[in-house]
Amino acid sequence: MSKTTLLDIANYVNVSTTTVSMVLNNKRINVADSTRNKIFKAARELNYIPNALARSLSTKKSYTIGFVIPDIGNPFFAEMAKAIETEAEKQGYSMILCNTFNSGRKEEDYIKLLIGKLVDGVIISASGEKNKSIELLEGNDIPFVIADRHIYNEDNINGVFCDNMDGITLGVKYLIKKGYKNVAFVGADTKEISKNSRLEYFKEISKEYNIFNSELIEEEEISLEGGIRATEKLINKNLPIDVIFYSSDVMAIGGMKCLLRSGYKIPGDIGILGYDNIGICSFIEPELTTIAQPIYNMGKESCNLLIDTINGKRKDKRVINLTPYLVDRKTIK
Amino acid sequence: MSKTTLLDIANYVNVSTTTVSMVLNNKRINVADSTRNKIFKAARELNYIPNALARSLSTKKSYTIGFVIPDIGNPFFAEMAKAIETEAEKQGYSMILCNTFNSGRKEEDYIKLLIGKLVDGVIISASGEKNKSIELLEGNDIPFVIADRHIYNEDNINGVFCDNMDGITLGVKYLIKKGYKNVAFVGADTKEISKNSRLEYFKEISKEYNIFNSELIEEEEISLEGGIRATEKLINKNLPIDVIFYSSDVMAIGGMKCLLRSGYKIPGDIGILGYDNIGICSFIEPELTTIAQPIYNMGKESCNLLIDTINGKRKDKRVINLTPYLVDRKTIK
Repeated sequence: MSKTTLLDIANYVNVSTTTVSMVLNNKRINVADSTRNKIFKAARELNYIPNALARSLSTKKSYTIGFVIPDIGNPFFAEMAKAIETEAEKQGYSMILCNTFNSGRKEEDYIKLLIGKLVDGVIISASGEKNKSIELLEGNDIPFVIADRHIYNEDNINGVFCDNMDGITLGVKYLIKKGYKNVAFVGADTKEISKNSRLEYFKEISKEYNIFNSELIEEEEISLEGGIRATEKLINKNLPIDVIFYSSDVMAIGGMKCLLRSGYKIPGDIGILGYDNIGICSFIEPELTTIAQPIYNMGKESCNLLIDTINGKRKDKRVINLTPYLVDRKTIK
Repeated sequence: MSKTTLLDIANYVNVSTTTVSMVLNNKRINVADSTRNKIFKAARELNYIPNALARSLSTKKSYTIGFVIPDIGNPFFAEMAKAIETEAEKQGYSMILCNTFNSGRKEEDYIKLLIGKLVDGVIISASGEKNKSIELLEGNDIPFVIADRHIYNEDNINGVFCDNMDGITLGVKYLIKKGYKNVAFVGADTKEISKNSRLEYFKEISKEYNIFNSELIEEEEISLEGGIRATEKLINKNLPIDVIFYSSDVMAIGGMKCLLRSGYKIPGDIGILGYDNIGICSFIEPELTTIAQPIYNMGKESCNLLIDTINGKRKDKRVINLTPYLVDRKTIK
């Protein structure tokens, strides 16, 4: 069967090829709705390959990028997705989003799907589980950028990260400056590789500043519930605690809830320091003091790095490390 | 140029067609990474059409559905996306997500993109702005389901909604039963069509129960900031207010923040009733009493209705109206 052309459709519906082209490309044209529908119907019946697809097949460009995230329920990724989409649109690209529920298998499935759907490139915030995603992307010559979460084999990739060593150091120094002595830390019990781990950096830096106490360190999943559980464990130890430093805002908010319910005053009895600066920090009362990741910039840099690579403007690989900063609100005295 | 076959690639790389097929379909096979990469490279050089795409072109099935949402930052849609994805996966479908930022133009662009990417069907929570999305879907015979937000021309469509009339009635009766007299209401200043509007229903039902007071009604955007602004306007009126009923949880949480800062006790001085039951209701302190939409079920029903339509199991159109219910937490005395 030969390929259906615009002329085939034009003859079938009895209109000009220009009309067919304008209708199928959704250009503004003054044509009756009935004609428009006849054209769409004919295109379908004659198995005409839709325009976006035909263009993709010939030019290998679809002006679409994929963003693969581990958890759509975590506001951090929703905020980054907004940034990527806003920046992509400025350059004429659309973004489609795939959520892996932190599963390496789903991540690999979505990478295959995106390759099959002919996206021009992919941004990945990895699930942390080992899988063949990167191999697949490299094998198919699909440009990609690793954002926020590190992966196992990071040689020679494009990446945008925020320096956790800097962020943890900033937090520890700030707490010491504020006069806190008994500093607890709640780290993430994640599948993520230990490289760039906030928990490992906290251990290292708190030792350096002589405030390390292994009894005051907990590990839990990155969620409200995880934050509540870690905080319960900490207060049940009946040890003096002046402040709790959480490795993510979501956990800090869970912790605050737990402390407020148990009658603690924040920051009067216990201070709270979060990490990420998600929008919700200012939803709660008292508002959360936190180590901010420049979320918008992380999305923007990831998007621009990807599109430059797609367009061949950048041949060598590049890793961008952004710097965290402190946002002083109401949970530290 | 004739279409590249698996045999062409097999000859080019000097392996069996079975090996080529298994590698390109990402099946488990014991083959050296170098061979795997050679196969991928050959497929690319010979312009082999990837499997997912070839299958789509021949069977017209891609086992992918699209979900178009107006605001990825609103936890309601993140929660519904999780439900749709979980249900879709059970039936072997993947979901890709597109965010419109409440723009009718972007909604239309994404519908075109999804049609071009050969998705099998689309679930839409509409932006509320008039556009050609529905016409495009119908013209291309793409099965679709309207979820949560109504659209302008709703004749003969598949839809899944939650009955706002029931929800508002439930809320008003509950507040009256609790002895509240001066009931304020904060509605959504949305582009959504007035059909099924919570604000309009509140006016109607509060009149019926003799608690209507036009001075105590505000309209604002659905966001934390919108909730804060509406609440400031209400308290600045210096009228007696016993309780505020917000048409969305996000606004209620903003309102609580504003009241707590101004020294009000909740529910001691003013009670708060929300609407939606997003996960964040239990993040905050005191936890928010709210009219719950069955978010998971809305996602599940939308997904099943769509996949049944894709599979031809359902020829006639169907609208499913789910029933809201009260979740009694800590913001009503």
